[in-house]
Amino acid sequence: MKHYSRGELLSASVSQLNTISTEIRREILVTVAQRGGHLSSNLGAVELTVALHRVFEFPKDKLIFDVGHQCYTHKLLSDRTDRFSTLRCEGGISGFPKREESEYDAYDTGHAGTAVSAALGFAKARDLTGGDYEVIALVGDGSFNNGLIYEALNSLHILNTRILIVLNDNGMSISPTVGGVHEELEGLKAGIGDAALFSRFGLEYIGVCNGNDFEELLPALERAKAALKSQCVLLHVVTRKGQGFSFSENAPLETHGYRAAAPRVCAYGEALGEELKELAERDRRIVAVTAAMADNLGLRGFFERFPDRAFDVGICEEHACVLAASLAAAGMKPYYAIYSTFLQRAFDEIVHDICGQDLPVTFCIDHAGVTGEDGETHQGIFDLSYLSLIPNLTIAVPRNIAEFRAMIRMSATYPKPLAIRYPACGSEGECGDVTVGTFEVLARGKAPFAVLAAGERCVTLGERLLARTKAEGRSFTLISARYIKPLDTACLMGLKEQTLVTLEDNVLIGGLGDAVARSVHGKEVRSFGYRDAFIPHGKADALAAEYGLDEDAIFSALGELYARG
Amino acid sequence: MKHYSRGELLSASVSQLNTISTEIRREILVTVAQRGGHLSSNLGAVELTVALHRVFEFPKDKLIFDVGHQCYTHKLLSDRTDRFSTLRCEGGISGFPKREESEYDAYDTGHAGTAVSAALGFAKARDLTGGDYEVIALVGDGSFNNGLIYEALNSLHILNTRILIVLNDNGMSISPTVGGVHEELEGLKAGIGDAALFSRFGLEYIGVCNGNDFEELLPALERAKAALKSQCVLLHVVTRKGQGFSFSENAPLETHGYRAAAPRVCAYGEALGEELKELAERDRRIVAVTAAMADNLGLRGFFERFPDRAFDVGICEEHACVLAASLAAAGMKPYYAIYSTFLQRAFDEIVHDICGQDLPVTFCIDHAGVTGEDGETHQGIFDLSYLSLIPNLTIAVPRNIAEFRAMIRMSATYPKPLAIRYPACGSEGECGDVTVGTFEVLARGKAPFAVLAAGERCVTLGERLLARTKAEGRSFTLISARYIKPLDTACLMGLKEQTLVTLEDNVLIGGLGDAVARSVHGKEVRSFGYRDAFIPHGKADALAAEYGLDEDAIFSALGELYARG
Repeated sequence: MKHYSRGELLSASVSQLNTISTEIRREILVTVAQRGGHLSSNLGAVELTVALHRVFEFPKDKLIFDVGHQCYTHKLLSDRTDRFSTLRCEGGISGFPKREESEYDAYDTGHAGTAVSAALGFAKARDLTGGDYEVIALVGDGSFNNGLIYEALNSLHILNTRILIVLNDNGMSISPTVGGVHEELEGLKAGIGDAALFSRFGLEYIGVCNGNDFEELLPALERAKAALKSQCVLLHVVTRKGQGFSFSENAPLETHGYRAAAPRVCAYGEALGEELKELAERDRRIVAVTAAMADNLGLRGFFERFPDRAFDVGICEEHACVLAASLAAAGMKPYYAIYSTFLQRAFDEIVHDICGQDLPVTFCIDHAGVTGEDGETHQGIFDLSYLSLIPNLTIAVPRNIAEFRAMIRMSATYPKPLAIRYPACGSEGECGDVTVGTFEVLARGKAPFAVLAAGERCVTLGERLLARTKAEGRSFTLISARYIKPLDTACLMGLKEQTLVTLEDNVLIGGLGDAVARSVHGKEVRSFGYRDAFIPHGKADALAAEYGLDEDAIFSALGELYARG
Repeated sequence: MKHYSRGELLSASVSQLNTISTEIRREILVTVAQRGGHLSSNLGAVELTVALHRVFEFPKDKLIFDVGHQCYTHKLLSDRTDRFSTLRCEGGISGFPKREESEYDAYDTGHAGTAVSAALGFAKARDLTGGDYEVIALVGDGSFNNGLIYEALNSLHILNTRILIVLNDNGMSISPTVGGVHEELEGLKAGIGDAALFSRFGLEYIGVCNGNDFEELLPALERAKAALKSQCVLLHVVTRKGQGFSFSENAPLETHGYRAAAPRVCAYGEALGEELKELAERDRRIVAVTAAMADNLGLRGFFERFPDRAFDVGICEEHACVLAASLAAAGMKPYYAIYSTFLQRAFDEIVHDICGQDLPVTFCIDHAGVTGEDGETHQGIFDLSYLSLIPNLTIAVPRNIAEFRAMIRMSATYPKPLAIRYPACGSEGECGDVTVGTFEVLARGKAPFAVLAAGERCVTLGERLLARTKAEGRSFTLISARYIKPLDTACLMGLKEQTLVTLEDNVLIGGLGDAVARSVHGKEVRSFGYRDAFIPHGKADALAAEYGLDEDAIFSALGELYARG
């Protein structure tokens, strides 16, 4: 589509703004259909973003997104119109705000709740340096559950500055938004509440009932801009997730995230739902806790079958973690299902509340490893490291869905904290027993080295390497290192090979390779995993290869080990 | 003191309850004077805790503390009266709630904001299993700033159960409480507010103006207990921190924590304050951010000198981290000072907001390493590990205060995220240049091994080992590994010694030893640090030795390395 300057937006009539919005909406739909991405959230925020670009002057003024699931219109209205078709491709436009990409992106985001804090930092810096710009935090209502938002709101009195918080309220996070604040917002929308909750924090409240209507939106935004001269302002804008395309309006959850490729069977989540439901039929202590993503984690069936024993607390990873801990302390058997990257938010609570008390909570960690198109903030490449350092925690890395199922079944009677870590998608496969702390020897071979691989991506890689090796008339011992902690030291001790090669879908620092090196003495350890860097957006397999799991490079390294050996 | 049963509390007159409270207060004072501990917070909550023990039936009912700085009266009224004199001694009574210690302690705590989430978990477990008990969360007003509390309050509607939240409001966290919620509470106390903020979340509000007066306290608590039969209740109790002893009432901050031993010069914090103030005189970009602990971190002087450039946002470690990130993104030079253990709360924000954007924030990480009497939740033994795995982060570990000062001065122009990690106390000493990524060779020697030590505790240990070695007519090379990341690979490559011995005041998993092992090939690495366990309360030096830094054991290991040749 054509690039619209601010001057064009300023001189446009409402009717012309609607035409521009339609054009933007089509561009988003066409691009997402091709590249995947966040659809319904972006469709809902088109008019709001167009209005912001008309009323404020970016990049002089600073627009800070929360999460960033609604930044596409912003990208189309700033300096990236011509490149927008590269959305989420390696080297192309990121699906999230990125400072490196454009000066219009003031602050990088990806996880919920950071926008108000970040806006306050920009505003304080402006005040201290005599700067002349406005700061706008654009936050979805799902994030308003997150504790970080409240910490920021609570500090408005202390920080004594001016920011505009635009609350884009579509009633959804990824799942429908839940909780007390949501009820408050619903009350305001229905005209039965008042803005007390927000005025307590020192916010001037302005409401917009139809945030997809420029006639309502523009005057309210001008009013907010004027009020912002002297105080903090909350502009509460009701929008419709998926607006503009009925298939998305009617199925906002299903169209929140959209994959461009042919649908893959992402069966780990499905398997979790099936196994957990079956276990829960027999064991009344089993409960499930999630943070706003029950469907994505495969737990819709569990939530429907056991509504009393399933808790979705909204985008509150820490609260979900403590809730799981205390449910366990009170005798229940909780499963906390979450994406790898989001679990980072609950690190302290994993350490003290769950592992410090040695409570039998099972973490079901989905989307582990390189995940691809969502980029830096969504790769699950740190978990093996930040979990390994925690005492009392057992870490399991199944090599296929069958083994994952077996581990979930095993977990039902496992009396300690347990983390099971798996990718989004995989294959069913087969497995034997899954005794905690044992590796599985997949192949015995003759080589001066053995290969230890953790998880489906790496075991598959190991199998491909073995096939290529066999094609050359050689072999090696291939082991599935299915428990990172505790390691199978008996297996390690028993290996005659002088060099141990480790493969992990995780950063090298603090992961499997380090653990093996710490456990064996007098052997050489060669570790393959991700180098010390943030991994941007792109195709998962290509990124994995580029950042450290390159099949050809590893095959060649194995060749050198043969030559030495 | 004598143990008072619930029967005795129930039959006691108000006058007798006051006598019991006086007795408890004296016991706390005498014990804390001898053992150290949290004084003013405990003194303020005596009547409240006595009243709770009279009105509720513990351990059948569950009392869940937040942080736990006010649990001493609870311990004196439960099954630990006779052992209370062992407070904070190794093997004795913990200063925090501990499930292992007593069935009266329902849930372990130490960090802020967990009590409401934990109470909800216990309540849901009760509902699901048909249990018959009440759940009470006892929370200080300082914790009410913490985002985790809000995540829990926000989920009251979702979880649909009954808990009593007792808000012990003494107007202080460790520092005076600040923020919007605090203003709200002050308004309620002054009779000018209403309880709207809390009723929005589904809480019945009951206020007690003088929570040190049984005549007010007991009927309110009975009312709360009755209301609790059908809903969630917030009992807002105003108490006086330090109540009962004028020296503590008048100096609640200074008597919050009390050290039994002769006051040590904990000069790292002082040095931070001095250096930062001096740098800030010349560089207007320098700002300081803390989470409720400016005084303890040595920053009182900075806050007084630069009130506009110093931000204490309350017990909000995550918000403080994003605020620091965004101040940096907007061109400022932020210093985020915090204790090691509390920084765990901001792990995700360190990863994405600061290091993901490669922003020049300097973390000043105080109380790193084994800290002693506060136990599991306050040891700073994980930071080298959870920080090492983060891309873009430089990690410095000064060996004395002079070097720490030099690193702070270096940081003023350092353009990337930097973590400087130091213990509470230390000696001034001397230092040379502190070029990033360089080790310092402290002594050259002749041995088949070299010793690499990180930080003051370990360098001092290395020096003691060297002195003992020299007394035997031998020597070794001793190196201060003052940057854990990046490592001084040139120095490591240049070492002729075949074995590298590492010493670190941190868990072994993911720390210095692992980093060295990852960097050198063909050499043996022998790592000494803490084994994979939570370290309880006791004397820091004794704990350090017991958990992995035992001088005699290491000396003997070095002897074996000499013998091997």
